[in-house]
Amino acid sequence: MDAGRTIQHNGSLVIQGDSIVAVGPQADIAGRYQAKQTIDAHGALVLPGFINGHTHVPMTLFRGLHDDVTLNDWLYKYIFPAEAKNVNEEFVRWGTRLAAAEQIRAGVTTFADMYYFEDAVAEETKKAGMRGVLGETFIDFPAPDNKSEPEMLAYTERFLKKWQGDPLIHAAPAPHSIYTCSKKTIQDAAALARKYNAPLLMHVSEMKKEWSDSEKEHGMSPVQYIESMGVLQPNLIAAHCIFVDEADRKLLAERQVGCIHNPSSNMMIASGVSPVPEMRAAGIALGLGTDGPAGSNNDLDLMEEIDLAAKLAKITKMDPLALNAKAVVEMATIDGARAVHLEREIGSLEPGKKADVILISLDEPNAVPMYDVYAQIAYALKGSDVETVIIGGKVVMRDHKLLTIDEPRVLEKAREYQKSVAASLGMATE
Amino acid sequence: MDAGRTIQHNGSLVIQGDSIVAVGPQADIAGRYQAKQTIDAHGALVLPGFINGHTHVPMTLFRGLHDDVTLNDWLYKYIFPAEAKNVNEEFVRWGTRLAAAEQIRAGVTTFADMYYFEDAVAEETKKAGMRGVLGETFIDFPAPDNKSEPEMLAYTERFLKKWQGDPLIHAAPAPHSIYTCSKKTIQDAAALARKYNAPLLMHVSEMKKEWSDSEKEHGMSPVQYIESMGVLQPNLIAAHCIFVDEADRKLLAERQVGCIHNPSSNMMIASGVSPVPEMRAAGIALGLGTDGPAGSNNDLDLMEEIDLAAKLAKITKMDPLALNAKAVVEMATIDGARAVHLEREIGSLEPGKKADVILISLDEPNAVPMYDVYAQIAYALKGSDVETVIIGGKVVMRDHKLLTIDEPRVLEKAREYQKSVAASLGMATE
Repeated sequence: MDAGRTIQHNGSLVIQGDSIVAVGPQADIAGRYQAKQTIDAHGALVLPGFINGHTHVPMTLFRGLHDDVTLNDWLYKYIFPAEAKNVNEEFVRWGTRLAAAEQIRAGVTTFADMYYFEDAVAEETKKAGMRGVLGETFIDFPAPDNKSEPEMLAYTERFLKKWQGDPLIHAAPAPHSIYTCSKKTIQDAAALARKYNAPLLMHVSEMKKEWSDSEKEHGMSPVQYIESMGVLQPNLIAAHCIFVDEADRKLLAERQVGCIHNPSSNMMIASGVSPVPEMRAAGIALGLGTDGPAGSNNDLDLMEEIDLAAKLAKITKMDPLALNAKAVVEMATIDGARAVHLEREIGSLEPGKKADVILISLDEPNAVPMYDVYAQIAYALKGSDVETVIIGGKVVMRDHKLLTIDEPRVLEKAREYQKSVAASLGMATE
Repeated sequence: MDAGRTIQHNGSLVIQGDSIVAVGPQADIAGRYQAKQTIDAHGALVLPGFINGHTHVPMTLFRGLHDDVTLNDWLYKYIFPAEAKNVNEEFVRWGTRLAAAEQIRAGVTTFADMYYFEDAVAEETKKAGMRGVLGETFIDFPAPDNKSEPEMLAYTERFLKKWQGDPLIHAAPAPHSIYTCSKKTIQDAAALARKYNAPLLMHVSEMKKEWSDSEKEHGMSPVQYIESMGVLQPNLIAAHCIFVDEADRKLLAERQVGCIHNPSSNMMIASGVSPVPEMRAAGIALGLGTDGPAGSNNDLDLMEEIDLAAKLAKITKMDPLALNAKAVVEMATIDGARAVHLEREIGSLEPGKKADVILISLDEPNAVPMYDVYAQIAYALKGSDVETVIIGGKVVMRDHKLLTIDEPRVLEKAREYQKSVAASLGMATE
């Protein structure tokens, strides 16, 4: 995933500290380094770790709580009440641990998140050894953590200060959307991000109603409205971007906004399909995301999003050439890195970049034969084929064994939360 | 998946010979049977095996050969030449073995197939211990096995005779489609099926051009044209059925035709989307299929089709209620059984039915918590979570270990075919 999209056959990769120092043909590398530790990747693909550009990890504990309902019912009848009754810092910690286990298992090394108690998300992400772009939510109603905008601002400023300079954690403010935040809230959050040189996360043009309300109330599209506030800046990570016309796309590209396409979520919520081929053609930094693992997916497996992104574009455009395997693998790696504004650190296997590296087994019935490596990654290999994961030079999964997470304990706690969440809502539990 | 869709918590299931003899609460069953062998399914879901209603298993050896091209280019530039140069009985055997390994691993216990040298497919399917509805292809040009219609008829009659009464193998003629077979070819194949009380497999209304050509040439839709030949009968298994209007759907239901929806294939080939909610509303027996693992998927993982069927219907109808989790699980099990005309044998866990049973682990990060069992199967669990598979009372996979297939040898052969297929087409190989 370097600029030349080099594919090394029988390659070697050298890691020192948290970074890659060399990559190339095994024959060239072999004599030049004394390895303290070696991982034999024979029979595996070695790739940059996948980047999940949009999710809400603590919601893993609500996985499958109420599906097959309208977004409005899901939010107001089920999820907001469930969050009000259950979400606290402890919930967020266990949800993050569970999500880290699931994501590492499927080869995700970096994720961008938006939720509450995001400092707890950051602590658990760091403990799991994952890289995170973690956004504390601003929303114009009392949230599970902060009950007012001043509290949100104070919490987030402490959060941003605390993680300044951390090698794994990129703390950020996350104004939820234009339909749940006032212009003032969004601008205050953006000012805070500027002050700390942080990214800014936001849902953008994810619903038809959001778009038509914006046209009605502001006489412009959501993207143009955000531009009019002065917030459409190169630090923005805009999730969804479903309703973006040609003028919007031009603006998103010019402002170097990172956009995140969430194909499973687009389909499951039936919200519409992001115009991915047009966005790529406009030069937008466009990554992939799973969205939250409740109501809109329901898992954190980015390899499924790679596959779906291509297939969804093809059927939407009624053109099998609409988006190809190489393009969707780019979206999960180097383009995803651009979209979360970390392209100098991650997204490819090049000297100087962080050593976020995954090994995918080719010793599986679904992995053979292999005529084209991009087609294999996009359409045939599975998250479960990921066998080893390295993040920032640290091995976090080796031969399918998680090394930074007490998995049995995390599963046990998830089952306990299942009972307490169900009880809080008066549901019978499975 | 019985008529009441009973879900047993802490249930037991008793198998004798190749059939289920009892299923119910553990407390009721425990004292009534002396078990020779017991499988502890604690912490797992126990389900009827999945039914892959449409595929071309030997094409596993062409997996990913040329994707992201138009169907026409794929067929005429790549696949037909590749088949002409590579497909022989040996190829079909190794492709079937590889596909059996992949399908068993993902919980498929029965598949419906259409290819050449189908008798070899049947022999290898039986050796792998899988259940198959296996169609020998009729097509109006020289095929890799038979070069003329009389040869196809003679081969298929031998094939049907040989497998009469087999407990696992249901041999069938498979006229490819109305756009590749004359009316005579289709009617001859159908007469042969009738003579041996066999099913009949066919691609039906899978392309816009097939539909418009039929309207032009015959003044009627493909479904009506097949009806006019007298072939729209209760033994027909019709793959795809994308272009089927209300009159077609009424006819398919009345004639008790089994239809197979292939969501990945619909998307990847960008051929259109089968009107699943309308077909179910019309009372059609509607199952799910992966289609072939080359060019149109590229794997044989039916659990992905379960997930996609729901999501594709939702986005196509712009309605998150269009098709729910329970419906798609039905399509993969009991409705799939109806669609391949084996509903008296398989599709549910009931006394008297064949013991086709799978255990899916719930001890995975993506498997917890579980608020709704159907949502979990459809949207969260993966083919790789299937841990144990029983077909006709025989354990074919135990704790992820295949017991009927020499998997390392099959993978090795697939890699050899990769080299020889690539060489035959003058391609560089990975």
